[in-house]
Amino acid sequence: MMNHAPESLRPLVIALDAMGGDRAPEIVVEGAALAHTRYPDVSFLFFGDEAKIMPLLAAHPLLRASSELRHTPDVVSSEMKPSHALRQGRHTSMRLAINAVAEGEASCVISAGNTGALMAMAKFVLKTLPGIDRPAIATLIPTQKGESVMLDLGANVECDAENLVQFALMGSIFCRTVLGRQEPTIGLLNIGTEELKGHDEIRIAASILRERPIPGRFFGFIEGNDVTAGTTDVVVTDGFSGNIALKSIEGTARLVAHFLRQSFEASWIAKLGYLLSRGAFQQLKKRADPRRYNGAMFLGLQGVCVKSHGGTDAQGFANAIGVARDLVAHGFNEKIAEELSMQYGFANGLIEAQHNDTL
Amino acid sequence: MMNHAPESLRPLVIALDAMGGDRAPEIVVEGAALAHTRYPDVSFLFFGDEAKIMPLLAAHPLLRASSELRHTPDVVSSEMKPSHALRQGRHTSMRLAINAVAEGEASCVISAGNTGALMAMAKFVLKTLPGIDRPAIATLIPTQKGESVMLDLGANVECDAENLVQFALMGSIFCRTVLGRQEPTIGLLNIGTEELKGHDEIRIAASILRERPIPGRFFGFIEGNDVTAGTTDVVVTDGFSGNIALKSIEGTARLVAHFLRQSFEASWIAKLGYLLSRGAFQQLKKRADPRRYNGAMFLGLQGVCVKSHGGTDAQGFANAIGVARDLVAHGFNEKIAEELSMQYGFANGLIEAQHNDTL
Repeated sequence: MMNHAPESLRPLVIALDAMGGDRAPEIVVEGAALAHTRYPDVSFLFFGDEAKIMPLLAAHPLLRASSELRHTPDVVSSEMKPSHALRQGRHTSMRLAINAVAEGEASCVISAGNTGALMAMAKFVLKTLPGIDRPAIATLIPTQKGESVMLDLGANVECDAENLVQFALMGSIFCRTVLGRQEPTIGLLNIGTEELKGHDEIRIAASILRERPIPGRFFGFIEGNDVTAGTTDVVVTDGFSGNIALKSIEGTARLVAHFLRQSFEASWIAKLGYLLSRGAFQQLKKRADPRRYNGAMFLGLQGVCVKSHGGTDAQGFANAIGVARDLVAHGFNEKIAEELSMQYGFANGLIEAQHNDTL
Repeated sequence: MMNHAPESLRPLVIALDAMGGDRAPEIVVEGAALAHTRYPDVSFLFFGDEAKIMPLLAAHPLLRASSELRHTPDVVSSEMKPSHALRQGRHTSMRLAINAVAEGEASCVISAGNTGALMAMAKFVLKTLPGIDRPAIATLIPTQKGESVMLDLGANVECDAENLVQFALMGSIFCRTVLGRQEPTIGLLNIGTEELKGHDEIRIAASILRERPIPGRFFGFIEGNDVTAGTTDVVVTDGFSGNIALKSIEGTARLVAHFLRQSFEASWIAKLGYLLSRGAFQQLKKRADPRRYNGAMFLGLQGVCVKSHGGTDAQGFANAIGVARDLVAHGFNEKIAEELSMQYGFANGLIEAQHNDTL
């Protein structure tokens, strides 16, 4: 029923967990349809409930013609614990979509489902890249200078210095790949109280980053306000602080929008001003649109895995697809492997040398 | 030269480090002058360079009449390490202003200088309240529901569960005292990844807060976006995460303002709209004005110590004075001591019982 084109005609296959997210499978199919018009080189492998997905695909004949659907009986719920999903979720849409990447059927996987479960399964199935101890979650953040990369956003509650150094390396290559900046600056998120500056692991990570040759340039410590100021191209932090910073940023954007709405509703002349300024507000809204920044990448895995926000719409999901496509098309993982190989003697995805004493 | 009114006529004396901050002593004297018109019951004890402060005071005869100036030869610089300030700074304006509180000459002390040095000196000179192991820095945060209290903002990079519980207690009483909410809700800042939720100390703190009778009501875990949403009246976190959250919030407010400016400059019709909406923008600006939220409190000391932002202006410094005055006038420290005494058997500033096994 679906079009099974030969592999050579499908250079970039994306596996989709069609059942993940608040409004799945609707937004997944709609998002794929949008992405398909943007990236005609991409085809999709849907995993999920056939009875629900088929009618949705029927509305998009072009998408349907370049897609394949695999029926999966189970779903990872949003409350499911990662360990439970790992043990019991072998027949879920999420797990089978990840498997498709491991088995070479797809170039990358995207899910809007349970983040913890997705990370646990992706790590278990895909494994980390040689030289990377722990995967990290990264995203693009809007800044006064454009966009910056921030990681980790919650995969690792506690990190040692070496983890942070690896995040710096991955974030820098991510920045080169996605934002095209050849010599990204890297900042380590810290607090400003001079003497006490930061946890031990941050201080040690800084001393390593000052000495070791890394892709990009180590800027030093930065503070919370530097993230949106765009002080550095890459912001490196542990998953606890990164998650809190990211969600504080999102919450503040909503607070200011709330204040703005209240201010403009306070008088008729302000309302008139608002009508005249609508274009400016729409521009602002577009710039700060969370859907533009949808798609958090799991970096450090042997395969590209992108997490879409669970509450996003089709537009947001299409953007997550775009991010995944860019990472694959620009050979992001190959570049990380290359960099690690140059630095540490890892090559071709195989560990050729253990960390030696000079590291 | 100054007016040495008898103690009975000066119910509330505030010691001011006149040399702390980017634009000291100017903004300190100007801020005191503003505060003096708002709070005629307050008088000031200035510590700093007489040659610089005298000419400034001369412009404010009313302030001058109810103030005293003590010449101090040294200054704590903004780069000075806290340990260095503690050892070498015995004759600085900051140290002598703190001493005035310890010696009963003043009810509280305010400085816009070096935060780390101020905390180190205040802790050394004033000591912590019985039952409080570590002081915390607290501030008010604007939220969608009004204002919330957040602590710690940087005094303690690492905290154990008991520290967090004490912060919850102090924050709750602070909220009652300053915001007048009798049954404040208390949230523990955490991240959303289910199973991995937070560091051990946060989980333990939550289990203690669920069981122990505390002033207010323990809400549970909250995330970064809950801070500005106003989900709880009090936000409790360690100094590292708290500092990063606070500065991320400040940075995002600046980012949105930057985006807004750019949007309105993009077309003449938007500019016209802006002119009509000016009132709304001024209202917004006033609401989000960082000077409104100036004045971070050092909670848990045997004396009220308020840190003003180093870069604030006279208006902001006057607000910090207002915060300090409110804490003293409403007997904030006495209320904490009372609460601790009820809960743990501490009374009258003396430890009457050690923590017993049931705690």
